Amino acid sequence: MVRLKGFKERMSVDLALRLFLEVELKKVDSEYVSVFDACGRIISEDIIAKIDVPHFDRSAVDGYAVRAEDTFGASLTNPVILKLAGEVEIGEKPCELKQGEAVKVSTGSALPKGANAVVMLEYAREFDENVEVYKPVTPWENVSKKGEDVKAGEVVLKKGEVLQPQDIGIISALGYSKVKVLKRVKVAVIATGNELVEVGEKPEVGKVVNSNSPMLCCAIKEFGCEPLYLGIARDDFGELLEKIRKAVEVADIVTITGGTSVGKKDIVPEVVKKLGRLIVHGVAMKPGMPTGLGVIEGKPILLLPGFPVATLISFYTFFPEILARITGIKIVAKKWSVVRAKLKRRIPSQPGVRTFARVLLKEGLAEPIRTSGSGILTSMIRANGMVVVPEDKEGFEEGESVEVILIRDLIKDS
Amino acid sequence: MVRLKGFKERMSVDLALRLFLEVELKKVDSEYVSVFDACGRIISEDIIAKIDVPHFDRSAVDGYAVRAEDTFGASLTNPVILKLAGEVEIGEKPCELKQGEAVKVSTGSALPKGANAVVMLEYAREFDENVEVYKPVTPWENVSKKGEDVKAGEVVLKKGEVLQPQDIGIISALGYSKVKVLKRVKVAVIATGNELVEVGEKPEVGKVVNSNSPMLCCAIKEFGCEPLYLGIARDDFGELLEKIRKAVEVADIVTITGGTSVGKKDIVPEVVKKLGRLIVHGVAMKPGMPTGLGVIEGKPILLLPGFPVATLISFYTFFPEILARITGIKIVAKKWSVVRAKLKRRIPSQPGVRTFARVLLKEGLAEPIRTSGSGILTSMIRANGMVVVPEDKEGFEEGESVEVILIRDLIKDS
Repeated sequence: MVRLKGFKERMSVDLALRLFLEVELKKVDSEYVSVFDACGRIISEDIIAKIDVPHFDRSAVDGYAVRAEDTFGASLTNPVILKLAGEVEIGEKPCELKQGEAVKVSTGSALPKGANAVVMLEYAREFDENVEVYKPVTPWENVSKKGEDVKAGEVVLKKGEVLQPQDIGIISALGYSKVKVLKRVKVAVIATGNELVEVGEKPEVGKVVNSNSPMLCCAIKEFGCEPLYLGIARDDFGELLEKIRKAVEVADIVTITGGTSVGKKDIVPEVVKKLGRLIVHGVAMKPGMPTGLGVIEGKPILLLPGFPVATLISFYTFFPEILARITGIKIVAKKWSVVRAKLKRRIPSQPGVRTFARVLLKEGLAEPIRTSGSGILTSMIRANGMVVVPEDKEGFEEGESVEVILIRDLIKDS
Repeated sequence: MVRLKGFKERMSVDLALRLFLEVELKKVDSEYVSVFDACGRIISEDIIAKIDVPHFDRSAVDGYAVRAEDTFGASLTNPVILKLAGEVEIGEKPCELKQGEAVKVSTGSALPKGANAVVMLEYAREFDENVEVYKPVTPWENVSKKGEDVKAGEVVLKKGEVLQPQDIGIISALGYSKVKVLKRVKVAVIATGNELVEVGEKPEVGKVVNSNSPMLCCAIKEFGCEPLYLGIARDDFGELLEKIRKAVEVADIVTITGGTSVGKKDIVPEVVKKLGRLIVHGVAMKPGMPTGLGVIEGKPILLLPGFPVATLISFYTFFPEILARITGIKIVAKKWSVVRAKLKRRIPSQPGVRTFARVLLKEGLAEPIRTSGSGILTSMIRANGMVVVPEDKEGFEEGESVEVILIRDLIKDS
């Protein structure tokens, strides 16, 4: 007699992902960018050295280039005396060096032809046209040999790496001024709901500011993607259809917040079905239950709940996987550290539902934040961590040791 | 008799920082940016709520708004019957509700005036013009009260925070469309050395590509700053003076790579002295010894060694501190996780010198990377971690448990 309202299917997170990732999806291309602009981008081909680095033998210290053999037996009391035959400054072409000669060099100077070692400045002294050497050197001592850093033909970086400063350094040193990287994935952001007013507008009673869209744009940027905000759609089939059609045209991934539940105004799933396929609708997670996954013309459509905490948690659960799928590369641009802590209070959860609890981690204790639901966005601000209760657990007990995903830096002035 | 070449003073890292941070430096301003562009920026004022969020009482579920008192005593066998007086759709203005009435609402609907609770859809049934209620509700049950998320007057975010998605969400929900953030700190990048050729050019024997500059530009971006690349300066007093003068004009912080040692071509310190003050020259760290710190017209000047590994390590050691000083805010935009591991081989170090060893962390074992010096940039690519040997230690022993700073994600397909 009691009417039970809800989703017909409430799929587990893992099953939802498995079903969705089986679908054929459009891949993202690559492009060439300047090494000056490649920071944080993802390389889409292996970087293979075409030249040696360094590309010539060079001195690793300030001192005198010599033939090591000429210095054998040298000591403080019995120095070897060599003829000072000149100097190779940094950046200059190397001269030649003959038996019995020394040539002044600096760190980075090309080694003179005929030399095979460098005596450090500390162990030599110039006088008149000669150099006194007080300590012998072995062949190739204090020399950075050609190819010591990188040998031609070596694979220096593998595709999929997020380019860091040192990577950019070595790519430049290898003679490249451009590098092939994945194109920035374009992600459309659509908000739906008759209750929404645009950011900056003052909402009447009953209306709310569309704060989800700027929030989501930020989350998208954190994954190195480019958000395309397409504005608010009313709860109108035609309007929504037009917006989603346009989104599929301009973006690689489409996200839609709100209108994904099963109320009469929750028409997003219907529009997705009309334009393509709805693979998943309703996921056994809390918050985030009204999540949906669809495909239109090979583009993934991520239907996100309208309540802000649910929006974010659902986004973080599904977006990285979708991104990995369409780029063919496992990208973890937004990472959180995981630490262990004891629970200050129990976290209840429903079996079969993956539950995301916000906690405040302080001095090794994780305190669950009291909140009346996924509409309370400050729960994500007062919290600095998240505890995930897996489907096969009925909550975590007080005092239990749990993994806390840090959603905010622990380094704070507080 | 043996001439000892080197820096007159070799200051400890801590002393260098203390001396430098005492100097009066120009502060960085703030600016207003759209909430859509504020992601990752640093807020420079506290965010205080001017309104309540939500700004009206709203239903937290789909169901029927009622006066809680009217439902007392309701049960499955003995339902309370209320008159269905209408519906408040999401986004609509609320109607009024009288004793004995129920009004249909959705999650997010404004609560009708006179109502103080919502019966969930599951526990009610509509028939004719009436609603049967099978379970009593307590006052304010299933209602998100005005101000439940944020109360007007509350400080929601403190200045200094790096803005995350949820922060952007709440700022937007509070009615702001713009937010005050620190201006992007402009950091000039100058490379010096007669041996340098520009990125993409083919160097002759003796010459090398200026790979330091794109590398440093990337490191600067990782701190949310804006790099301004000013090109290569020859080892010429006048040319260098002009470039540094220009850099001080356009940037908040100036970085110069190379020419900081004590060779005859290492004229950067002299130029800095001419234009301002050189506070530190020569730091007891390895690599990174030829680091210098100066001030010109209140702008910090960071003199970085020319060898790439030394460049990076010196940058990471001093730049975050300088940034915190001129912004007045401790910003940790680039963070690394620290894990503990056992050393696979000993790391030697000189007492009194802070030593940065590159290690490859694999299955709990940290293996020091063999390298002939700070010119070997691939040591930073083959490594995924760094072990810092403090000044008061003479290296770390094989098998010793050490802290490893992760310089690269451990998440790799390898």
